[in-house]
Amino acid sequence: MRPRLVLFGDSITELSFQSGGWGAALTDRFARQADVVLRGLSGYNTRWALKVLPRAMEGAADADPAAITVFFGANDASLPDQVSAHQNVPLEEYQSNLRAICGYFKVKASLRACAIMPFSDSDMLDSSLMCLVLRSQERWPSTAIILITPPPIYEPARIRDIHGVDDPSRQAERTNEAAGSYAQACISVAKELGHPVIDIWTKMQEFPDWQTSALSDGLHFTPTGNQILFHEVVKTLASIGFSQESLPSDLPRYREIDPKDPMKAFEV
Amino acid sequence: MRPRLVLFGDSITELSFQSGGWGAALTDRFARQADVVLRGLSGYNTRWALKVLPRAMEGAADADPAAITVFFGANDASLPDQVSAHQNVPLEEYQSNLRAICGYFKVKASLRACAIMPFSDSDMLDSSLMCLVLRSQERWPSTAIILITPPPIYEPARIRDIHGVDDPSRQAERTNEAAGSYAQACISVAKELGHPVIDIWTKMQEFPDWQTSALSDGLHFTPTGNQILFHEVVKTLASIGFSQESLPSDLPRYREIDPKDPMKAFEV
Repeated sequence: MRPRLVLFGDSITELSFQSGGWGAALTDRFARQADVVLRGLSGYNTRWALKVLPRAMEGAADADPAAITVFFGANDASLPDQVSAHQNVPLEEYQSNLRAICGYFKVKASLRACAIMPFSDSDMLDSSLMCLVLRSQERWPSTAIILITPPPIYEPARIRDIHGVDDPSRQAERTNEAAGSYAQACISVAKELGHPVIDIWTKMQEFPDWQTSALSDGLHFTPTGNQILFHEVVKTLASIGFSQESLPSDLPRYREIDPKDPMKAFEV
Repeated sequence: MRPRLVLFGDSITELSFQSGGWGAALTDRFARQADVVLRGLSGYNTRWALKVLPRAMEGAADADPAAITVFFGANDASLPDQVSAHQNVPLEEYQSNLRAICGYFKVKASLRACAIMPFSDSDMLDSSLMCLVLRSQERWPSTAIILITPPPIYEPARIRDIHGVDDPSRQAERTNEAAGSYAQACISVAKELGHPVIDIWTKMQEFPDWQTSALSDGLHFTPTGNQILFHEVVKTLASIGFSQESLPSDLPRYREIDPKDPMKAFEV
């Protein structure tokens, strides 16, 4: 059975199979080695993601996926007094939601009840005995959780997108500074829980003209921005032993098929 | 549970998540409605595909996928006296292999044995009784099988790819005429079995300069070629009731979330 890679996040995940997208690039890279499952929820913040988590994961993986990317924060970091205020989640709640999302993948609690029934109706109230056992186990014990920070924001492009005009006197609904605080908060949760983290907020800003080369509307990714994230995900996956080199190939490769005796490659 | 769409074929399927690819475009189109599973095997013909079919489908679908595309023939149609001769599969075998591949998805036979054991060792040979029951059932009864014909071939580009020179006096390892015969053979099997079929050999040749606009090396697809196939697959899926309009969305869409009372959308 091929290992699975689940992509869980907001629009930057949902749109990751558009032309040049990082999700499609991952599927292409591991085309003969792993299955990539898309669970992107445009517009969602961690509060909403947490609310739908069990439903979002339905059918995503029967057994433990090899890894899951958790990529939220771009919406949580919306300013609480601007047009996207309803997407805002306070910084501390963002952190506790991230903890709860990671916890969901790692802890599965079930309450098992066993009742000792009374012998007669008259015994019902005083002698019936109920025994409750709380069992705790890991949902996906072997799954690596990769946290991804919110990306940087280019405010002039957000003003244009929201207000329809280039007007620096107006206020964007997201700022790079707020996104940076959420990025730091995400890194801190990842460290606390011992999960790998991709600081795409910092990484992206190392690229020349990242404001327009990596971002299309000051928030979402251009093909170049997608490539930046793709390479970071590939590097992080390699660090947990998930790479083209380490994963077996599903079925014989064409180059392994001997032109003089093709069927030999298919002998089990 | 989201419906699944399985893509099964040769390199034109395996490479379908490269930038602009038809597989990625399908994943993007149904991002919130269905899961797309890639099972592309570069270089494979129907003979090899049939040989690995049960292994290729491992993990592709637990329950019936909504549809599976079966896209082979480009390698089967390789000329039997040229450099890709070992990929060639005679026309009639190509058809019987296609029938067997389709049959695999539709028929699952299992042999169930029940033995009535003898009372003593001395009874072993004459009184032991074995009962064999052959049970036949459908593997994926509700799955639509969509056959796709091999694509057209642009021979000058194949000569350049194989021999490294533009030399019309040399022979390509594939011809458009041979591909056309396999396309017709594929259509005929689809009609015989009552499965929908996409005649990409004919369809692609309706586009201006298809030789170079739709094909990158006379065989594989450019982003334009990928778009042509993508639209044909979307049309065919719609004809079996699998469309953006007919499929439910997985979890509330952002536009359905009321900014004044966001959590209302998540009440079950």
